[in-house]
Amino acid sequence: MSHVYERVALIGLGLIASSMFWAIRRGDLAGEVTGYARSAGTRETARRIGLCDRVCDTLEEAVSGADLVVLCVPVGAMGAVAEAMAPHLKPGATVSDVGSVKKAVIDAVGPHIPEGVHFVPAHPLAGTEHSGPESGFATLFDNRWSLLVPVVGSDPGAVARLRALWEGMGANVEEMDAEHHDLVLAVTSHTPHLIAYTMVGVADDLRRVTDSEVIKYSAAGFRDFTRIAASDPTMWRDVFLTNKEATLEILGRFTEELFALQRAIRTGDGEQLFDYFTRTRAIRRGIIEAGQDTDAPDFGRAGAKK
Amino acid sequence: MSHVYERVALIGLGLIASSMFWAIRRGDLAGEVTGYARSAGTRETARRIGLCDRVCDTLEEAVSGADLVVLCVPVGAMGAVAEAMAPHLKPGATVSDVGSVKKAVIDAVGPHIPEGVHFVPAHPLAGTEHSGPESGFATLFDNRWSLLVPVVGSDPGAVARLRALWEGMGANVEEMDAEHHDLVLAVTSHTPHLIAYTMVGVADDLRRVTDSEVIKYSAAGFRDFTRIAASDPTMWRDVFLTNKEATLEILGRFTEELFALQRAIRTGDGEQLFDYFTRTRAIRRGIIEAGQDTDAPDFGRAGAKK
Repeated sequence: MSHVYERVALIGLGLIASSMFWAIRRGDLAGEVTGYARSAGTRETARRIGLCDRVCDTLEEAVSGADLVVLCVPVGAMGAVAEAMAPHLKPGATVSDVGSVKKAVIDAVGPHIPEGVHFVPAHPLAGTEHSGPESGFATLFDNRWSLLVPVVGSDPGAVARLRALWEGMGANVEEMDAEHHDLVLAVTSHTPHLIAYTMVGVADDLRRVTDSEVIKYSAAGFRDFTRIAASDPTMWRDVFLTNKEATLEILGRFTEELFALQRAIRTGDGEQLFDYFTRTRAIRRGIIEAGQDTDAPDFGRAGAKK
Repeated sequence: MSHVYERVALIGLGLIASSMFWAIRRGDLAGEVTGYARSAGTRETARRIGLCDRVCDTLEEAVSGADLVVLCVPVGAMGAVAEAMAPHLKPGATVSDVGSVKKAVIDAVGPHIPEGVHFVPAHPLAGTEHSGPESGFATLFDNRWSLLVPVVGSDPGAVARLRALWEGMGANVEEMDAEHHDLVLAVTSHTPHLIAYTMVGVADDLRRVTDSEVIKYSAAGFRDFTRIAASDPTMWRDVFLTNKEATLEILGRFTEELFALQRAIRTGDGEQLFDYFTRTRAIRRGIIEAGQDTDAPDFGRAGAKK
């Protein structure tokens, strides 16, 4: 494939940026990829494992001359990074990001984008519970969705080029407005993560059930929650602080439903429980048919056979 | 290995019974395994796939002469099945079960156990989201825990023999009293399942986020919940109706914690969120070190690389 961009700068070198680099290299999608991380330790790791064609010691150096700059830092840090790099952006360049919320990122980054630079926010719906520069891999985005969230006045050409990059990295691409994005993600990601963190915290708190029992007997269902609750704490703190409104709305609905089921348990209403549990099976089938998860039992882990 | 029992009867032919049959055959742990299911269709499927050495059309025929009878029916059905089979049990036989709750099973089954027959309740902590006779496989119990819950007066010899069977099927075995079992499982299994069912139900209800969006974008975290929420509705209805007390207690704790985190989100208390999310990472590490889950990202599904 011919290069989509001549030079790409990845700012922040965690799971997503490192996976982007390996995916860009796999597809030969850019002439050069520069990288910058605030921590010297991270930059050193990146150099050691060959992450990025050139790891820069300053933000300025990394973004200078880049046709595309992608902010891969926690959502809460994006505004400050955008402000710091703004004077060094090349005219005609595109700034994008990979943040899990979009309204707050647009509010924080948008005002710093100079005249003549394009701003096309994005969010790849992909990740694992691992974080850091060594956790990335080229296939992370294959058959996952990447959502582009153009802002008012986003240049159609800049949007199309970013779409080509994401498609080149293996993703399916869709466009969406920021408000809808934040609500959809509150349902499919943010609230499930908060609930998983909460359940794991509860288990950790219990004194009569020792840690070791919680761990030993985790395969009964709980261990699925612990994977989600092992995700990066900084990233998730920022997600909840910046997608407050939609998360609180979905949490309110969740609590309502939970109380209704709790009441059914208390009153012994087996029919209500059975009907509820039957309805939720259909969604799973839909996800498997859509190719978004495996049908292998237990996600195929531990050699479970179909 | 020499046979642990000469004849084993499996009553109810779903995921657990079918996995037990394949694991017993793999280890050559019994001379003959008979099977019975209430539904003629299930018996037919079992015969077609070679599940059990002999599939019987009546409960009486299946349990006659058996040294071990294992109840693998939903918890809510166990009392009636125990009553029906009691007159046909061989003196000196052992009756066990695989139910996910233990106090309720002991209350329901215990009174029907005839003089001279041993009763050793058990619960293998293993399963997948799939159900039915065709979903079983021989390795389901490998390195999983199986909990024996002897009742007052359980014969030590009968307990030791059942332990040998579970170990022969690949499981690690521990003994526990019924009350503690039900609390531990409320934490590691029952409450997580209820929460997953609830979250999936909420997503299903939302009108602004269409089904197709929930499904398309499920890889962001939600799809893990849908696997759990695809489990057998009858089994789970019975679990919540029969482990009411412990489940409601853990649910109460969960709600308390959830409200505290919700308040932290509302008031913008990033420190509290960060601390909470950091603490929960440690449990995940413990589970991986204990060999109860894989460290491969995303459980290793979809070819994710470490």
